Amino acid sequence: MEEKQQGLHVAVVGATGAVGQQMIKTLEKRDFPIKQLTLLSSSRSAGTKVKYKGQEVTVQEAKPESFEGVDIALFSAGGSISLQFAPEAVKRGAIVVDNTSAYRMDENVPLVVPEVNENDLKEHKGIIANPNCSTIQMVAAMEPIRRAYGLNKVIVSTYQAVSGSGAAAIEELQTQTQEILNGEEINPQVLPVKSDKKHYQIAFNAIPQIDKFQDNGYTFEEMKMINETKKIMHMPELPVAATCVRIPVVTGHSESLYIEVNEAGVSAEDIKALMKDAPGVVLEDDIDNQVYPMPAHSVGKNEVFVGRIRKDLDNDKGFHMWVVSDNLLKGAAWNSVQIAESLIKLGLVTLK
Amino acid sequence: MEEKQQGLHVAVVGATGAVGQQMIKTLEKRDFPIKQLTLLSSSRSAGTKVKYKGQEVTVQEAKPESFEGVDIALFSAGGSISLQFAPEAVKRGAIVVDNTSAYRMDENVPLVVPEVNENDLKEHKGIIANPNCSTIQMVAAMEPIRRAYGLNKVIVSTYQAVSGSGAAAIEELQTQTQEILNGEEINPQVLPVKSDKKHYQIAFNAIPQIDKFQDNGYTFEEMKMINETKKIMHMPELPVAATCVRIPVVTGHSESLYIEVNEAGVSAEDIKALMKDAPGVVLEDDIDNQVYPMPAHSVGKNEVFVGRIRKDLDNDKGFHMWVVSDNLLKGAAWNSVQIAESLIKLGLVTLK
Repeated sequence: MEEKQQGLHVAVVGATGAVGQQMIKTLEKRDFPIKQLTLLSSSRSAGTKVKYKGQEVTVQEAKPESFEGVDIALFSAGGSISLQFAPEAVKRGAIVVDNTSAYRMDENVPLVVPEVNENDLKEHKGIIANPNCSTIQMVAAMEPIRRAYGLNKVIVSTYQAVSGSGAAAIEELQTQTQEILNGEEINPQVLPVKSDKKHYQIAFNAIPQIDKFQDNGYTFEEMKMINETKKIMHMPELPVAATCVRIPVVTGHSESLYIEVNEAGVSAEDIKALMKDAPGVVLEDDIDNQVYPMPAHSVGKNEVFVGRIRKDLDNDKGFHMWVVSDNLLKGAAWNSVQIAESLIKLGLVTLK
Repeated sequence: MEEKQQGLHVAVVGATGAVGQQMIKTLEKRDFPIKQLTLLSSSRSAGTKVKYKGQEVTVQEAKPESFEGVDIALFSAGGSISLQFAPEAVKRGAIVVDNTSAYRMDENVPLVVPEVNENDLKEHKGIIANPNCSTIQMVAAMEPIRRAYGLNKVIVSTYQAVSGSGAAAIEELQTQTQEILNGEEINPQVLPVKSDKKHYQIAFNAIPQIDKFQDNGYTFEEMKMINETKKIMHMPELPVAATCVRIPVVTGHSESLYIEVNEAGVSAEDIKALMKDAPGVVLEDDIDNQVYPMPAHSVGKNEVFVGRIRKDLDNDKGFHMWVVSDNLLKGAAWNSVQIAESLIKLGLVTLK
């Protein structure tokens, strides 16, 4: 193996969380040029030891001075932590890649999916936002279609895994499932939203609420998909509608996606050909052999899987498809690390 | 209790299946006027004893002569059994209510959801078809809207329970879930379609295939929703699109439904008011208190539950909603028994 002479000082904030763990694994897997790795968390998790490339790294409590000398800080510890510490990191010269919703709609913050709008990184002022998991996989699938045929309308219904709600939600699904199989009473406390008033059974159920309700009747998750899609694709006028649903899957978000293109006469085969060549996308569409994406098959993979591509039976410009991805990877950790890789590629950060 | 002097000779074909069992329970619960109950099945299940109002009834092997003297025969034993025995039952004077897809698109067979097109029963020629489970709950929710404001477009994505695929699928979900929780190897053999080539994990997964694929890229389940909706609602030109997905829920189908009405200026409150008064429909829509339909809450209930009603953010005529019902009851057994009740009400069958 090549000896690494040059590298970056990388910090991971929220290192013990579901996404933070995947960030560390992804940095390792991608052989990211790291000279120094700082793992940060709340005081509660500080002291935990995490393995990186065979070495134990001790997680420290995040403080403003933790970011001294840091080149890139990957945040995934909740919006309030990002609001508190991201400016401190930037003040000390770090570039922040934030996986929370805290800065996503800030007009001074690029919201980036590298396959879609990598060049927006050039406008960054210290903070870069990583979009919502369910948004990322959808725009990655739609962007090649937009470029080729234009895009006029988006209606999406999601089938989202509990890991999008963190480690406690994974634990709740597993424990509750066992309780139901045993015929025992259940006691939901985490899903759909830990801080909301009521909690419901997720095992063998479907909950049409992800994040809290907004005044307009949509959930915050649905509004994230709507607003972030418009921002990432630079299409403020694009009609986007979303219904977000939690289902009893541990990892892997699925989406039933309907789009309308601009151009007439496009065929399902045309869309399939685009998906076959699209960066970060894998076409899984062979119905004769029952090949289509499924969340259980997406776990641990960086790509967005697209299948069930078919033309609407009534609208020549309408297409239906099924989009699946590991919500902890392309939906979170991998997209964040990919942004960090893009920063190097574009010369926006320099290896020392 | 009133002494029943008059009643009908009712046969249930497929009496030991997931739906057949619910039919028997529903007849009992509704206190359906039964003078004689004949329970029929394949030779494999013949001899099974089933309780009806405290009495044991022995299931017999279905034969043409089993239908002698039968007034109403409720079929739910698979399409081939219906094709074989429904004409025999009709020949012997019975009215057949068939829960399979065998006769649904036959132009001589009414396809009926009583809340929508009860009067179509008057045209029957011996066989009446019960629509597909996922279709029934959708049209029950849409019909009051169509009557008030017209209907121009339907796009639905389903979240379907495994019981729609029968008792073996329920068993597979439960066994497989336990195996995965135990860290054991799984061996899928039933879902998505028992008679298809490949079988996939359903526990903690989502499978975008229900029934077999058709030449046009849609599954048969999707085409059932599309074609049956047009027939039931007498709208052959209505644009309907469906994506049907199996999720790890035992009972209760959910649907993310997008519709466009004819009239401008309709509000979400208008739609909610319609749902509140709609026959067979229960409005569950109070987001301030996190009230919305969920499959786990629908089990054992005859109604169709509708919530998450909201206006599209871009299209004045577009509305999104979430529709849930017990697929074995309104989706199958209850709708069949309800048809039988309508036959009595309309004087199309006479109590003796």
